[in-house]
Amino acid sequence: MKVSMTETNSTKTCSSHWKFIYSLADKVKRFPGLVRREIWKVGKDDPRRILHSLKVGLALALVSLLYLMEPLFKGIGSNAMWAVMTVVVVMEFTVGGTLSKGLNRGLGTSLAGLLAFFIEYLADNPDQIFRAIFIGAAVFLLGAAATFVRFIPYIKKNYDYGVMVFLLTFNLIIVSSYRVDNVLKMAKDRISTICIGVGLCLVMSLFVFPNWSGEDLHKSTISKLEGLANSVEATVVEYFSDSKKQANEDDSSEDPIYKCYEAVLDSKARDETLALQASWEPRYSKCCQRIPWQQYAKVGASLRHFSYTVVALHGCLQSEIQTPRSIRDLYKDSCIRLAQEVSKVLRVMANSIRKKHQFSLQILSNNLNEVLQDLDNALKSQPQLLLGSRNSRSRTPKISTKATAHNDNRLEEETRLSLSSIKSDCCSPVGSKSKEHSREQIKEGQRQKKVLRPQLSKIIITSLEFSEALPFAAFTSMLVEMVAKLDHVMDKVEELGRMSHFREFRDGDDDENIVVTCERPKMNIVDNDLPSYGAE
Amino acid sequence: MKVSMTETNSTKTCSSHWKFIYSLADKVKRFPGLVRREIWKVGKDDPRRILHSLKVGLALALVSLLYLMEPLFKGIGSNAMWAVMTVVVVMEFTVGGTLSKGLNRGLGTSLAGLLAFFIEYLADNPDQIFRAIFIGAAVFLLGAAATFVRFIPYIKKNYDYGVMVFLLTFNLIIVSSYRVDNVLKMAKDRISTICIGVGLCLVMSLFVFPNWSGEDLHKSTISKLEGLANSVEATVVEYFSDSKKQANEDDSSEDPIYKCYEAVLDSKARDETLALQASWEPRYSKCCQRIPWQQYAKVGASLRHFSYTVVALHGCLQSEIQTPRSIRDLYKDSCIRLAQEVSKVLRVMANSIRKKHQFSLQILSNNLNEVLQDLDNALKSQPQLLLGSRNSRSRTPKISTKATAHNDNRLEEETRLSLSSIKSDCCSPVGSKSKEHSREQIKEGQRQKKVLRPQLSKIIITSLEFSEALPFAAFTSMLVEMVAKLDHVMDKVEELGRMSHFREFRDGDDDENIVVTCERPKMNIVDNDLPSYGAE
Repeated sequence: MKVSMTETNSTKTCSSHWKFIYSLADKVKRFPGLVRREIWKVGKDDPRRILHSLKVGLALALVSLLYLMEPLFKGIGSNAMWAVMTVVVVMEFTVGGTLSKGLNRGLGTSLAGLLAFFIEYLADNPDQIFRAIFIGAAVFLLGAAATFVRFIPYIKKNYDYGVMVFLLTFNLIIVSSYRVDNVLKMAKDRISTICIGVGLCLVMSLFVFPNWSGEDLHKSTISKLEGLANSVEATVVEYFSDSKKQANEDDSSEDPIYKCYEAVLDSKARDETLALQASWEPRYSKCCQRIPWQQYAKVGASLRHFSYTVVALHGCLQSEIQTPRSIRDLYKDSCIRLAQEVSKVLRVMANSIRKKHQFSLQILSNNLNEVLQDLDNALKSQPQLLLGSRNSRSRTPKISTKATAHNDNRLEEETRLSLSSIKSDCCSPVGSKSKEHSREQIKEGQRQKKVLRPQLSKIIITSLEFSEALPFAAFTSMLVEMVAKLDHVMDKVEELGRMSHFREFRDGDDDENIVVTCERPKMNIVDNDLPSYGAE
Repeated sequence: MKVSMTETNSTKTCSSHWKFIYSLADKVKRFPGLVRREIWKVGKDDPRRILHSLKVGLALALVSLLYLMEPLFKGIGSNAMWAVMTVVVVMEFTVGGTLSKGLNRGLGTSLAGLLAFFIEYLADNPDQIFRAIFIGAAVFLLGAAATFVRFIPYIKKNYDYGVMVFLLTFNLIIVSSYRVDNVLKMAKDRISTICIGVGLCLVMSLFVFPNWSGEDLHKSTISKLEGLANSVEATVVEYFSDSKKQANEDDSSEDPIYKCYEAVLDSKARDETLALQASWEPRYSKCCQRIPWQQYAKVGASLRHFSYTVVALHGCLQSEIQTPRSIRDLYKDSCIRLAQEVSKVLRVMANSIRKKHQFSLQILSNNLNEVLQDLDNALKSQPQLLLGSRNSRSRTPKISTKATAHNDNRLEEETRLSLSSIKSDCCSPVGSKSKEHSREQIKEGQRQKKVLRPQLSKIIITSLEFSEALPFAAFTSMLVEMVAKLDHVMDKVEELGRMSHFREFRDGDDDENIVVTCERPKMNIVDNDLPSYGAE
């Protein structure tokens, strides 16, 4: 008996070993395919990456000519390797990145050279031991000081690389000066070869298929606005749609709505890096004035705050207690209209940035206010919601029906009132398309209301528990809160328009050609532009 | 007349010039003070920065000895400058950063050396032009390939610096090989001096006042938990406090509540960098198993999602429409108790991570559920909220009073019921301190309710508009939503406890020594550890 058990055990161990080996072999076999797919994906996500890689290869091959071609090598000598180094390190994906690194490198090297000569002058003493101590002390002090300076936020943000190159060059020159007599020549060579390297990088960056940080920032701002517009609309529509869809809500990472605003939430680092790089780029608006890239970062910050509300609104979809659908349906139209208006405003702003024309803050605000008022009216004019406990429900129906009978009349009245007010508001100078559109909406609303009427009286009788009304109230409140946050975004975008001298707003600008993109906005350009570690 | 106007104009221009010069002089005069304050602040925010600066200075001075001391220089020669370079570039603030850079540099250099020799072997041809073309082509191809590889997310995250160093070294060796005969010696020298540099950096990082990324991550997770606990508590307390405070709410950047959770919102980049660096660090838990740093990053992610709800809750404070204070006061106790419970759970988790003992998910969940039930009861048992429009208000008082007269009795009953249920629940195995605390709370609650009773009947008569109830409903709903998100955080923290083999939970662990820190948590260690650009 025992023997057989041991045998089974050993068979088991053996088979598990084999299994492990098989799975390993399987993994190894699938590895090339995995790598191929990954490489394909990286290239497909942003084809500029392939171009950039070829550019770097070309730049390196060109800079190698300094070494490989006889006449060039005679002029520069083995110092050409500094140029090679510079190209590897300075060449970044965007023009802004390359410029910022190249200028930092140039500045750092020059300053370090000057300071090194000054200290070399001070240390000019025949006593070698004194010189060694003096140089050692200088290296220690400047090393500590430069490292500390790199912690200062302003320096860290703008000149971190410059300070590092400064420290590096200073050390190389000052330490070499102890052994090499002709330090001046060495420093000159280093500076000139670095200049060659930086120059080559700049030429390749600026003139051969340039990638502008500013353009990336511009596009990502637009796509963020559109992504948020899509997610707001989708969230509200889903909230009022059939409950079947809510089953597969659990894996929020797969949720298309989540995907739309996901990129906005964590956009801080990227926005700031892009804005910083863009501010180095020599690009001007029509009036020869600098484009206010920092304002783009501010728009991004306000969008981030807006997106927190979107998250909260989206959270309402997953709430466990749900307000009865019948109650929700009462406010469906107003809520969806508000969401559509919010989305429209976001898209108008996206369009305004894309086409570089200003938008009319006035008209958009008016429209928003109108729809907000509409929702408010709906909330007020709809039948009273008796928020009592279930216990008391049995005793209240009489009272409710009495109250609602009255209300039903009033509702009709108020609906008519609010409709007429919308109609009169529509005569404000908005594009004719939107007028037609809203009229259609109103008609639709009337139709829907007529259909709803017979059901209303039924609903009115059922009173609603406060705890049941909570999620819906939160949803509505979040919608309203969202409008407040949107106001902030609108201010920032308008300021951006003013600062970048966008074309003045003309009637009808808002409504023509609003690009409604329903696919997921492309956000995966993200990783190109973050500062890399640098090398050597 | 004209003349005098011109005179006035010129005087004006003149005075404005002077003003400009004065203000400039003033700025220049104040500049040193500004710099001094900034430097003082940087040092005070995190004194380890000063220590780190001195360490870098010392390391540089030590590595300079290779050049300055005769016997050392004889052995290594002018290649010592590679060691100097390595120290400047590799030395990072934390052990993890230094290790990751150092190992990347070593790996990149070695691989590049091997490949360069292989290609050198292939290009071994007497025809110089063929060699030049072959080398140029190799440089182009490898440059493009390496640059493209750096875009692959996995490589970018872990080995970006390594690939860069690889490219650099490869180019240097292969290009030099065209002119220099003894490339093998050059490569060997480069590798050995880089090893000296990396070794020195590691010794300085690991053994002289080491700064561990893991520790930073550990501490920042604790302080984030505590910051959120403070902000939740403060938000709810402020919501129910006198409205006077709400005046200076506008500048949200100065808001102490905002400051508490601000650091959590944008913590993604920092968390991930720290977790990555920490995973390089040779630190083990008691059982000689790796500490699951990536799980810390996951806790951070769940905290970020929790904080979005805190933002929404905080937004309720600034809402323009406010529910009448009298109505809010009805639910004050339950809401504050829920917020206190949420804060307590957050603090228990912070404490659990700090002291490395597990916490009882069961007890915390039970307590939370209890308080949640309490709030639910309060919402159900409190007087009916008649949500009608103002118009109908005048006609409803009679109805309401009738209903509320009944409710007032029921309220008293239910309050007694819920109180007794809390008392009986208190006998569950929780620490005695918290029992006393909660009993005190209950007594206080009873006292408050007794004081409130006479006012209640008044409040009940005033019916509430739905639009007025909205903000409060949203507030309550957000509180409930927050508990759901908290659940997710609790799961992640519990998983962290299990994975890091925290000490088992013992009765009474939860309640002893909960550190209540009310000051703003220190979050400004943030900028030390982000990857710097690197140099040369």
